[in-house]
Amino acid sequence: MRLDETARGVFPIAPTPFTAEGAIDWTSVDRMVDVYAAAGATGLTVLGVMGEAPKLDAGESAALAARFIRRAGALPVVVGVSAPGFAAMRALALSAMEAGAAGVMIAPPNSLRTDDSIVAYYRQAVEAIGADVPFVLQDFPLTFTVVMTPGVIRRIVEENPSCVMLKHEDWPGLDKISALRRWSDAGAMRRISILCGNGGLFLDFEGERGADGAMTGYAFPDMLVDVVRMTAAGERDAAHDLFDAHLPLLRYEQQPGIGLAVRKYVMARRGIIAGDHQRKPGGTLDATAKAEVEFLLRRLARVDRRAALPLA
Amino acid sequence: MRLDETARGVFPIAPTPFTAEGAIDWTSVDRMVDVYAAAGATGLTVLGVMGEAPKLDAGESAALAARFIRRAGALPVVVGVSAPGFAAMRALALSAMEAGAAGVMIAPPNSLRTDDSIVAYYRQAVEAIGADVPFVLQDFPLTFTVVMTPGVIRRIVEENPSCVMLKHEDWPGLDKISALRRWSDAGAMRRISILCGNGGLFLDFEGERGADGAMTGYAFPDMLVDVVRMTAAGERDAAHDLFDAHLPLLRYEQQPGIGLAVRKYVMARRGIIAGDHQRKPGGTLDATAKAEVEFLLRRLARVDRRAALPLA
Amino acid sequence: MRLDETARGVFPIAPTPFTAEGAIDWTSVDRMVDVYAAAGATGLTVLGVMGEAPKLDAGESAALAARFIRRAGALPVVVGVSAPGFAAMRALALSAMEAGAAGVMIAPPNSLRTDDSIVAYYRQAVEAIGADVPFVLQDFPLTFTVVMTPGVIRRIVEENPSCVMLKHEDWPGLDKISALRRWSDAGAMRRISILCGNGGLFLDFEGERGADGAMTGYAFPDMLVDVVRMTAAGERDAAHDLFDAHLPLLRYEQQPGIGLAVRKYVMARRGIIAGDHQRKPGGTLDATAKAEVEFLLRRLARVDRRAALPLA
Amino acid sequence: MRLDETARGVFPIAPTPFTAEGAIDWTSVDRMVDVYAAAGATGLTVLGVMGEAPKLDAGESAALAARFIRRAGALPVVVGVSAPGFAAMRALALSAMEAGAAGVMIAPPNSLRTDDSIVAYYRQAVEAIGADVPFVLQDFPLTFTVVMTPGVIRRIVEENPSCVMLKHEDWPGLDKISALRRWSDAGAMRRISILCGNGGLFLDFEGERGADGAMTGYAFPDMLVDVVRMTAAGERDAAHDLFDAHLPLLRYEQQPGIGLAVRKYVMARRGIIAGDHQRKPGGTLDATAKAEVEFLLRRLARVDRRAALPLA
Repeated sequence: MRLDETARGVFPIAPTPFTAEGAIDWTSVDRMVDVYAAAGATGLTVLGVMGEAPKLDAGESAALAARFIRRAGALPVVVGVSAPGFAAMRALALSAMEAGAAGVMIAPPNSLRTDDSIVAYYRQAVEAIGADVPFVLQDFPLTFTVVMTPGVIRRIVEENPSCVMLKHEDWPGLDKISALRRWSDAGAMRRISILCGNGGLFLDFEGERGADGAMTGYAFPDMLVDVVRMTAAGERDAAHDLFDAHLPLLRYEQQPGIGLAVRKYVMARRGIIAGDHQRKPGGTLDATAKAEVEFLLRRLARVDRRAALPLA
Repeated sequence: MRLDETARGVFPIAPTPFTAEGAIDWTSVDRMVDVYAAAGATGLTVLGVMGEAPKLDAGESAALAARFIRRAGALPVVVGVSAPGFAAMRALALSAMEAGAAGVMIAPPNSLRTDDSIVAYYRQAVEAIGADVPFVLQDFPLTFTVVMTPGVIRRIVEENPSCVMLKHEDWPGLDKISALRRWSDAGAMRRISILCGNGGLFLDFEGERGADGAMTGYAFPDMLVDVVRMTAAGERDAAHDLFDAHLPLLRYEQQPGIGLAVRKYVMARRGIIAGDHQRKPGGTLDATAKAEVEFLLRRLARVDRRAALPLA
Repeated sequence: MRLDETARGVFPIAPTPFTAEGAIDWTSVDRMVDVYAAAGATGLTVLGVMGEAPKLDAGESAALAARFIRRAGALPVVVGVSAPGFAAMRALALSAMEAGAAGVMIAPPNSLRTDDSIVAYYRQAVEAIGADVPFVLQDFPLTFTVVMTPGVIRRIVEENPSCVMLKHEDWPGLDKISALRRWSDAGAMRRISILCGNGGLFLDFEGERGADGAMTGYAFPDMLVDVVRMTAAGERDAAHDLFDAHLPLLRYEQQPGIGLAVRKYVMARRGIIAGDHQRKPGGTLDATAKAEVEFLLRRLARVDRRAALPLA
Repeated sequence: MRLDETARGVFPIAPTPFTAEGAIDWTSVDRMVDVYAAAGATGLTVLGVMGEAPKLDAGESAALAARFIRRAGALPVVVGVSAPGFAAMRALALSAMEAGAAGVMIAPPNSLRTDDSIVAYYRQAVEAIGADVPFVLQDFPLTFTVVMTPGVIRRIVEENPSCVMLKHEDWPGLDKISALRRWSDAGAMRRISILCGNGGLFLDFEGERGADGAMTGYAFPDMLVDVVRMTAAGERDAAHDLFDAHLPLLRYEQQPGIGLAVRKYVMARRGIIAGDHQRKPGGTLDATAKAEVEFLLRRLARVDRRAALPLA
């Protein structure tokens, strides 16, 4: 089961659940995978930025990826292998593929500054991990400070047949989806899968622009699945109605830094993971922020009962 | 009428209306001021980043500020005077104050990298413009790449009695409001006015955290006024209901770069300005984006009739 | 007298002399021009980064450029017109050309991140100042954080016939000179003048790589002239001997930030300007730094008598 | 043998020698250590930025550090453990200390933007590696974009008794050495060792300012040893004479990016390592650059016979 350009639907970005002591919470890993599958996810992404990947050591990363893959069964798993150097990237990519990953995801290092240097980086990355390993190109300027024009993305896609998917999270980014789709529709570029991230903040329009779905970690992956499905089915108003109901919370969760604390808090409240712990150094929600999240959940619950979470 | 720390309510960030040829559209300037006043604005801010200030030459900047001030009558006007150097900042500040401005606004240059250098910059700015000119401290890391801790803001406030307001647009930023208010409540810091920017994306909570209002340019300033008033009056659910209805459009408008095109488009649709032209180099909305904005307006109009805009 | 692609030799970057009170020291301006001319400069550049240009207001900039131009007589003067927006750039460029400038110099704003955005910026700049105004492309990544590949420079040169010179100060940058010269030698790119900046730190090799000279502000412009002339004449060892003797001081002067204080100090010691004042905010040399500079001057004077400067 | 604040002399930054195929060249590792010892080094630093550390995977890093340590015998070895996260940092630090390292070196991640965040980072790093592991604070703004004021360095030193050394490579940086030494002389700050990097570009003055020596990788570590010794012995002119003779080559080697290629080329020419290979992606010298380096070596050999390297 290799990732390819036909991938669609929702690949949730899985956080890494930790215990209060900072150890990986393996039980929660398994439960989370089951919840994603039950919610209708078509795949899974692990060891992304929001998965606290840099806080794991090499052994933990490999073990965590393997656990996710085993539990996911038939669901394809994408493993983030971004690293400061190609040796570490290669080691993790090989280990993940051997464990049964469907593909890997690679973000650009923030030192890249010219079009050519971005293209060269992906050429070298493919050389490092092997041209037979399908990979996802992650385009997230806000976090990585690397800006890729549609033309640069096309060069990477054309040069590397193993590039099968774009994790699109430029901001603003709707025009970029349209530009890439215009090219592939016109035969000017190989068509790849486009799944959108950026916390889902523009998911209501991304499918309409030609994206194939979402790859993001919002604490209600079931909502992401619904919106992607309704958009694909042409149920435009229903898709927007559901999305709009979630937008106040989604926007709150999408804040840099503190966002992961919100996400884990809600996931813990939903029972998807046992606790909202982050490995140090991590953000936490103070009482005021928690009260705001609870307020947003209560308001959301008026429209979407999945947000009705009885307090313990 | 000098700006002071009691300022509250909504100071819309005024865009600069241009004709199709790139000249300042003075008629629209006047109409816009009238609309803001009628909407319940308690002040006005001109020559901000979203006012295309850097595209004006020195003479135009001074003339535009003067026109806004004259038309605004009793409404206090804050003039953005950020500049690459203190001579230009001083020249514009003096000209604006002479024309009757209530105060000026100063953003940090993106070269500042340490706490001390930020504090020193504002000390020098005050020396340049004069300690008698009230100023607004603009804290907008996403755009300026300068990060100010609450402690740095306190140092600037304590050192400079003429610092009377914070334009708060850090992201995430709710905790910063709380931290500053804790200090001023405890007597550990002089209390200044806090008006929030960042497109209004968190306005529904900012007032609850202790902010005094908004200073941002969303195309429905009347909504900003309503939300600030309802929050102050303790009408929490009503405030959130109205805010949430606007959030899909507000979020669309808050995109970097293209956001100003959205804002001007909606303002033109509302008849506040004659056209949505930007001086070059400026962004424009293509047909798809316009259709998305119109769709958002129609959806919004179901809740807020002010968004019901008959097409010509 | 318009700047064109045949320009060669040394165009010193002139600092702006100030009085202790921060006023422009017009007498020193004139004397400095005379010294440059006597030293063998083939042109002059004013209002560069090291000319404290951002500290001048619009009126001062225009007046200073005009004064330099008038005094320079037959020497072509390049005027830096970099600005946060095109209106200010246009105003200064027109005023300078009217006063008799040979051309203008334009640095990229530090927000540019992709090849296309850099090329577009210069297209828009030319539109703003007029296609008939010769301009110098300033390529200085260390200061502006904008990285231009040789390919991007070629695109700018090919698109804009009025681009006649590159102020080359990439670091490392020798290969860039070679790449550009290979292209123009092969007819793959229009040949433009290349003058090198970066404090002169690699001037000993830049001429050998194909550069036409220097555009930098080292306090011994007469040395720059000598090295450029000797390199052109094939007196390789003599050129390196003289350069190497100056390198310890040149390296000391090339430090970011404090470098301008060193430069002005030495120029004042040489009697080129009346004092080493900078307009605020400016750096100053403490006693230790001054002693180090004097030590370097004494050591240099053993080889180059122009550095033998009796203390008052 | 634990690193402490009395460390002085020269700790060369060792590059990682590779074979043409990209494998670690273990024989060259051993020979390099022997050469450093024979040259008078008082310690050794491995896995720094210029050691291509990010190109190694976790296993290789640990193995390489162990090999250096074993061969170095009585010489203290500092191991660079900078990593994107604390788990990887901790794993490498523990492995290195177990293998007999004298201490570790930690650079700040380039995301840090405020004084408090820098101080917090080092607090967390110490928590991760253990308060009993001596560490070197690396201050290199040009590469890491993190600017530390002397005050921030003092806070880190005061908070963390295990901080025993500063690798000083700010630019400009002489005043920073003076400021820190003034504080420790006045009892206002615990005195730590200061070894200077930055390619050695200001080594001629750094000792005079109060630095204890050098930690940099210039291809003539024997020169660094001589200059540090002569400076300490008060042989000022002799120190500067030797330094100045090397400065043209040293400056050439200190170029970002290409510098490592120059360094390895010269080290290979001197027979210190078998070849100048870098693991991919790495820079290489073309024929022109090699000729320039050879030219600089020949010129240097007129003063320092160690640079007289017969071509094979």
